[in-house]
Amino acid sequence: MYQFIENGTVTSVKGFKAAGIHSGIKKRKKDLALIYSELPCTAAGTFTINKVKAAPLLISKQAISGKKPVKAVLVNSGNANACTGKEGHEDAKLTQKHCAELLGVKPGEVLVSSTGVIGKRLPMDTFLSGIEKIVPLLSGEGGLDAAQAIMTTDKKMKSYALKVKLEGGSVKIGAICKGSGMIMPNMATMLAFVTTDAKISQALLQKTLKKSVQNTFNKISVDGETSTNDMVVVMANGVSGVTIKAGSKNEALFQEALEALSRKMAKAIVSDGEGATKLVTVNVTGAKTDKDANLVGKAIANSALVKTAVYGRDANWGRIMSAAGMSGAQLDPAKVTISFDSLPILLPEYKIVLDEEKALAVLSRDEFEININLGSGKKSSTWYTCDFTEDYIKINADYRT
Amino acid sequence: MYQFIENGTVTSVKGFKAAGIHSGIKKRKKDLALIYSELPCTAAGTFTINKVKAAPLLISKQAISGKKPVKAVLVNSGNANACTGKEGHEDAKLTQKHCAELLGVKPGEVLVSSTGVIGKRLPMDTFLSGIEKIVPLLSGEGGLDAAQAIMTTDKKMKSYALKVKLEGGSVKIGAICKGSGMIMPNMATMLAFVTTDAKISQALLQKTLKKSVQNTFNKISVDGETSTNDMVVVMANGVSGVTIKAGSKNEALFQEALEALSRKMAKAIVSDGEGATKLVTVNVTGAKTDKDANLVGKAIANSALVKTAVYGRDANWGRIMSAAGMSGAQLDPAKVTISFDSLPILLPEYKIVLDEEKALAVLSRDEFEININLGSGKKSSTWYTCDFTEDYIKINADYRT
Repeated sequence: MYQFIENGTVTSVKGFKAAGIHSGIKKRKKDLALIYSELPCTAAGTFTINKVKAAPLLISKQAISGKKPVKAVLVNSGNANACTGKEGHEDAKLTQKHCAELLGVKPGEVLVSSTGVIGKRLPMDTFLSGIEKIVPLLSGEGGLDAAQAIMTTDKKMKSYALKVKLEGGSVKIGAICKGSGMIMPNMATMLAFVTTDAKISQALLQKTLKKSVQNTFNKISVDGETSTNDMVVVMANGVSGVTIKAGSKNEALFQEALEALSRKMAKAIVSDGEGATKLVTVNVTGAKTDKDANLVGKAIANSALVKTAVYGRDANWGRIMSAAGMSGAQLDPAKVTISFDSLPILLPEYKIVLDEEKALAVLSRDEFEININLGSGKKSSTWYTCDFTEDYIKINADYRT
Repeated sequence: MYQFIENGTVTSVKGFKAAGIHSGIKKRKKDLALIYSELPCTAAGTFTINKVKAAPLLISKQAISGKKPVKAVLVNSGNANACTGKEGHEDAKLTQKHCAELLGVKPGEVLVSSTGVIGKRLPMDTFLSGIEKIVPLLSGEGGLDAAQAIMTTDKKMKSYALKVKLEGGSVKIGAICKGSGMIMPNMATMLAFVTTDAKISQALLQKTLKKSVQNTFNKISVDGETSTNDMVVVMANGVSGVTIKAGSKNEALFQEALEALSRKMAKAIVSDGEGATKLVTVNVTGAKTDKDANLVGKAIANSALVKTAVYGRDANWGRIMSAAGMSGAQLDPAKVTISFDSLPILLPEYKIVLDEEKALAVLSRDEFEININLGSGKKSSTWYTCDFTEDYIKINADYRT
């Protein structure tokens, strides 16, 4: 019972302000975003599992795990502040403190996040004066500016909101996120910032977020890489007055809505993956266990050969089989069925029913499904991936992340 | 105490004949190879761990595991005979039988191997008449023709031989192999056929092969894919009269030589990887455990972002750190040292000593080393990888493997 809002964003939710500016960290594009809530928010987050973690990520992770209310998220693009040692940590602390002072809140109420080049110190003068510029610009219409300011190699801005009817009233959930390289199915895997006016405890918010991330952001792959800076943060200010209690019908409805919003973002990130021209949904069914379904989905979503075949519009089901065979899942290849959208390609016992012409028509679509039924059980898993093109190579040979 | 032989190949070893022809499986290029020993050979092999295994691979694996002598290997390129069901198995059996009849040997003495497109039946008429053509062409000079005939997207023929002095005399080891896509560190990972005139038991030959493969073919990556048809086979005909016994000095010398030959092939496969322009050796040192060293080496060798940075000659050590951080190994990023060849890039505590100009000079070399010291122990591991270029995409968007 949720409905997406046109041009929705983090500030579509009552009580949230935002802004996005060019501070000078990047040459020309917007590079600094701030999201702010006048009321204290319950906050939940998921963070990268890469053992190399960026300084701002560690600071935000600590703040969230303290389970205290937060009021703002400060995000810069163009510099990841990762692998910058103690100095980088001090830099991030200083930006947090400066922003808190100007907002009139406690430093611990400001989350910080960075994305961009690894291993370079933040340009602190630029950053601090950027903070001075952005705070007065906070407004109820600033969400889209903030969405622009967190982009790196993204071509498209990613900003959404939806309204969900609950018992006792409606709540809104707004979000902005960015991709688009270093994207692999594992934990958070990018930056996303979500706002909501639901009234919800920290524990329940964390639980619903974790579950949403598991089925969405953790099921996408652009290039099999997991960054040092990934995080998803959700802030709930309670303004709607609508309460979500654990085990209630409202929890289920809120979960469904948050997951829908997360899926929207996850698919947008893949679809706008570096160099991508196609969005491919990989549906694995008929697996013996959940683990097997996931392994096969992940292997296909990550296969360079499947992804180049998709780019070449080549109905190369052999590469799909080979990827499944190397996934680590239990697999009897003779039981496997493969189809592209509703077009059957391979039936059990290696019966090939591939019609090249019809397959080319499906593979020429901007979006299509690879369906693989392992014929061994009832478990399933859905993954999202994109094609692998010369532009991915160009972008990453030239760009220093 | 081994020495490489110029223009060495499988027929550089006394008692082995070979041939390579165009039979018509491919449009124009050579596509059928045969290696033959007049004397029965001890044979050992390693085979893909992909759960989807090609028909000829299953047949050869069974023959090798029977530990009976073999006399020939028949190899075609242009068609993998994988995912072809019972019919594909019958096809492979028939080629084996036909070849055996014409050679005057038992079917079980002929190993069969295929590489190329997955999921298509072999063109049997073409194949069987090809066998009739190739058998009379067997000669002591046919090794290079055979090396050409097993190539798929390889640009360079891969053929080698060496002579190793043992107690009691010298033995030779010759080899041909092919890459160059679907190459990932895991088990055999390509086709290689090795001949030797050493006198050695099946068990010892299998043991030395396994050890050689572990440190060479299992430490390379072109694209993180493991094929359905990979195998390495070694045939020993004993013609030299030089015996290699378990636990002897000869075993150690033979092991060293076989490993050197395997490393030569492994590096040649990476260097000629699809679209590759550079050969990169990844040396991981200072790991706490062997497993950690391997995980880090594998992660760096497989990272699309590291490989595109190498292509772009970008001294992007942050991507190396990020790959190491996601490898699953125990890692304290503050202890890590990174250098390119002998040029230091990063010292412990994130001390960056990167000189961009000097780094560009190293990265402009056709071959160079990425050295990463984890600063946490004494274990090490060496891996081989190549850069990731637009040509990889082009080759695999157009070519149906």
